[in-house]
Amino acid sequence: MSDRKRRNRSVGLTSAATLVALSLATPQAYAADGKIIHDAEHYVLEAQHGAKWAMEDADIQAKLAALEAKHGMKPNIIHIMWDDTGVGEVGIPEIQAVRGFETPNMNQMADEGINFMRMYSEIACTQTRAAFQTGRYAVRSGMHSVAFPVESSGIDADEVMIAELLSDVGYKTAFYGKWHLGDTEPSYAHNQGYDEAFFTPYNQVPSMWVEGAELNNVVTGLFPEFYGEDKYDIDNSWQPNGYVWTLEGTKGGETLEWGPPPTVTNFWDIETEAQRRTLAFIDKSVEANEPFFIAYHPIALGFIPDPREKSKLTANKNVLQEALVRIDTFVGELFTHLDAKGISDNTLVIVMADNGPFTHFGPRGQVETLYTGGKGDFTEGGVRVPAIAKWEGVIEPDQIVGDIVHVTDLYTTFARLGGAMDGIPRDRVIDGVDQTSLFLNGDGNSRRDYVMIYQHKKLAAGVKGRFKRDWKNATPGLSMNEFYDLYTDPREANGEMIEQFHVKSMFNRQLARHNLWVEKYPNRAEPTPGPALTGIANERPETAKLRTSPVDLEKLPFTPEQMNNYPLPLSGSDF
Amino acid sequence: MSDRKRRNRSVGLTSAATLVALSLATPQAYAADGKIIHDAEHYVLEAQHGAKWAMEDADIQAKLAALEAKHGMKPNIIHIMWDDTGVGEVGIPEIQAVRGFETPNMNQMADEGINFMRMYSEIACTQTRAAFQTGRYAVRSGMHSVAFPVESSGIDADEVMIAELLSDVGYKTAFYGKWHLGDTEPSYAHNQGYDEAFFTPYNQVPSMWVEGAELNNVVTGLFPEFYGEDKYDIDNSWQPNGYVWTLEGTKGGETLEWGPPPTVTNFWDIETEAQRRTLAFIDKSVEANEPFFIAYHPIALGFIPDPREKSKLTANKNVLQEALVRIDTFVGELFTHLDAKGISDNTLVIVMADNGPFTHFGPRGQVETLYTGGKGDFTEGGVRVPAIAKWEGVIEPDQIVGDIVHVTDLYTTFARLGGAMDGIPRDRVIDGVDQTSLFLNGDGNSRRDYVMIYQHKKLAAGVKGRFKRDWKNATPGLSMNEFYDLYTDPREANGEMIEQFHVKSMFNRQLARHNLWVEKYPNRAEPTPGPALTGIANERPETAKLRTSPVDLEKLPFTPEQMNNYPLPLSGSDF
Repeated sequence: MSDRKRRNRSVGLTSAATLVALSLATPQAYAADGKIIHDAEHYVLEAQHGAKWAMEDADIQAKLAALEAKHGMKPNIIHIMWDDTGVGEVGIPEIQAVRGFETPNMNQMADEGINFMRMYSEIACTQTRAAFQTGRYAVRSGMHSVAFPVESSGIDADEVMIAELLSDVGYKTAFYGKWHLGDTEPSYAHNQGYDEAFFTPYNQVPSMWVEGAELNNVVTGLFPEFYGEDKYDIDNSWQPNGYVWTLEGTKGGETLEWGPPPTVTNFWDIETEAQRRTLAFIDKSVEANEPFFIAYHPIALGFIPDPREKSKLTANKNVLQEALVRIDTFVGELFTHLDAKGISDNTLVIVMADNGPFTHFGPRGQVETLYTGGKGDFTEGGVRVPAIAKWEGVIEPDQIVGDIVHVTDLYTTFARLGGAMDGIPRDRVIDGVDQTSLFLNGDGNSRRDYVMIYQHKKLAAGVKGRFKRDWKNATPGLSMNEFYDLYTDPREANGEMIEQFHVKSMFNRQLARHNLWVEKYPNRAEPTPGPALTGIANERPETAKLRTSPVDLEKLPFTPEQMNNYPLPLSGSDF
Repeated sequence: MSDRKRRNRSVGLTSAATLVALSLATPQAYAADGKIIHDAEHYVLEAQHGAKWAMEDADIQAKLAALEAKHGMKPNIIHIMWDDTGVGEVGIPEIQAVRGFETPNMNQMADEGINFMRMYSEIACTQTRAAFQTGRYAVRSGMHSVAFPVESSGIDADEVMIAELLSDVGYKTAFYGKWHLGDTEPSYAHNQGYDEAFFTPYNQVPSMWVEGAELNNVVTGLFPEFYGEDKYDIDNSWQPNGYVWTLEGTKGGETLEWGPPPTVTNFWDIETEAQRRTLAFIDKSVEANEPFFIAYHPIALGFIPDPREKSKLTANKNVLQEALVRIDTFVGELFTHLDAKGISDNTLVIVMADNGPFTHFGPRGQVETLYTGGKGDFTEGGVRVPAIAKWEGVIEPDQIVGDIVHVTDLYTTFARLGGAMDGIPRDRVIDGVDQTSLFLNGDGNSRRDYVMIYQHKKLAAGVKGRFKRDWKNATPGLSMNEFYDLYTDPREANGEMIEQFHVKSMFNRQLARHNLWVEKYPNRAEPTPGPALTGIANERPETAKLRTSPVDLEKLPFTPEQMNNYPLPLSGSDF
């Protein structure tokens, strides 16, 4: 509901040129000293294990220094993150055997690195991508909702992205693929720390906004001309008539729209181009003898079949599994490329999904595997994702890691590896904890036993080790069996009270601590508003039209600002 | 319902000594020549692949002959089958990492052998055990229901068990553990082809029939003294007051009850003794220089915790996972033992479960993993089980096999390996197909693409490759979306019609062929009745009392025979 309301609200009215001015040059308000502020729960663990962690960290620092000395630079980092995939769909060939497809390269990655069995994401695309880029739960940066065209808002310029951190310490940084963090100029990837960017501001829209999408029963019309004439349709103010699919830009440089509007035959060119640029950026960095950080976030899965394929790649045949195989092929090419460049032993590669399967009216074949629920749910099926890390000679091969990790931890861990810890802001909560010890020392070395799972702005569930509390359905006073033991009941089929009465007060305290910290370090309420899709040097007339209201604003009894500042409903009972 | 009715019906009335006499010496009516009669569906495949299979078989026969020449005997076979475990709970360490336990020895077996990802069982214990022993769907031998104490019936003497086949060609055969194929004398394991037997006629009752069981909230009273006084309880005829837990015997020898009645502290002695005898039987066979076949079917999982354990073996802590770890420890000991005896390269070892998890009011921690449903269900969760095979030097290591296999196939495959194919009866349908090629040649070499899934006497579903049809809920005429594509929807969450309209007529034909064959080779209607728990040389007075009706039978207007011959309701709508 909120996303739909939000979309209707934003377009045409609030995106008009009258919106408050935003500065691209907002100074990043953080100190370069002091300790990182973590979520409150972290301190409970630190109080118990801090001394041990400090000793481990000294060893890790020595090891990283030795590696830097050996290679003459910091390690390269490549992060690949795609959509909507349940735990087990990649990296566990036994499960693939019963699903009728195979990702040999990523399975081999698992054999040669770490298969994370408990990587938590946020519940949906925008949220996880914001969490990854900022090291903070999406709710803290206001990125608590999935962005759809046209939002006229985006991630705030004051958020300190991982690319900014790494850029500041000498990394060459690049983003290719699905960005999904807003459509305002400050939110563009190359305005958020990336030296080079080639990105879709939203999601897989390029694969939906073609006539062929209707064949797959996914999209019956994003745009007015997809519908037949409807004589009852009397509001012509909100449906966009122009659109932008892919942007490209360089840090401090101009923004360009890339390529022609996608068609059923060319929409995959975006993916191909993103992959081509990924390999080219590696080459360029190697040539410059500079460490690189590349986030390649595939637009695959698309919502319609790849038009280049005469027959399916898999017995499974559905768009997710077909997409996984295509991503897997690129992962194979990537490792071949790293080997050819001689940098495999100085490059950390992580592949993962952004949230659970798209089980709620998503494409066919998007189903639960090990966990209950999918994208959008606070059950494990929504927020546990496949994740594999490989780093030749540094990460021990063939590890299955059962520890809790959160996507925000990659922010802090990449900062540690890149020597960019000092750049992490000290004026806000950073949810990501440094998991370098887990990466280097393996199973049992996580510095996290908790996850707070949000839906929109509301805490829906808390995780503590094997236990989980469903806050969304909790009742005051006596429990409504909202406790789960995830070893015993990983599918959260049977909420319990009697067997877990001892965990109730712990979860109460966890929540109290968490909320105390939220009060102290308040969340940004919403994505930062702004005019949509501005600053495009080769702007098409249709794009400019997106920012022009078809309604005479003078005739309305409220202003776009008033609309834009009125808070959206919270989740659940607040709807 | 049927099991409860059956239990009530059988005890005290039909188990009286007036029952029809049964001969242990019924001649086994099968011919030693001619072709094996398979289920009708098999011939559709044979017509397409028979020539290829014949060529493969010639190679296989040569390979087996070479092995026999090398070892001077046929290969040994050890079959271990326990209860109620979903696919993935053993053999996939990634899944164990999220469940909080580990079976390192069985996982290593998977690394060194075949991890079958699509082994089908029957829906419940008795059925799968009957299918394994006879190579026939349980419905064909009348063993279509789970036996509970006291049934006064059992598997028929005319069924030709795998032990009979192998015994006849020179194998030493032994059965240890949970038998669950009846409580009549002809059904005892040592009267069904096993040279040595040590077995519980029913299931895990020894672990339930102790006071401590109540603590686990599993059993609130199998026996009258577990209940308080109930003044409304006026029928004293059906509740047994005596019981037999474990029997032992040798082929042609006497039957003895073993051990004292189990208590909360000693019930696991049955398991320990079964394991001890397994290893001792290996020693004896090696000494005698004769090939052996051992079926060790653990009574673990018990329904109460192992009293020997001061603390849990697993973080998971539930009885299933604890039991799996105990079984795993024995599997480790077994391989060490085989190595020590120098026979690992002439011994096929298979470990598997008998049906899906006990999700319907079973012990805590029995939950769905990859599939929907559990024990008793016709969904994949009920009938797909973990299964791993290892045979050093013969089975290629590290194989994941996605082919369909059915538990009955082990009958035929063991017969092939033991040179006992001629002993397989030719007067009835043998559902098991020879899967030696799959074992020796690996993935893609199954000779089966179908499974017929029965609940009680009724066909509930048919499987054909990736497709499944739910017959139980099928509607005449237009489909009620009862079709599933198991690659796309392994959890059978969304029955389909449109996308699978092309499979309807195929399933119609599959069923027609199957039923044609059932008409030609009729099923045995029921387990063969007989007095319960007779022929025990050291019979206790309480046991004899089981066969004495507390009701004066002369005062009843019907006879035990009439009761016994009245058919039970069929499943589903016939209840």
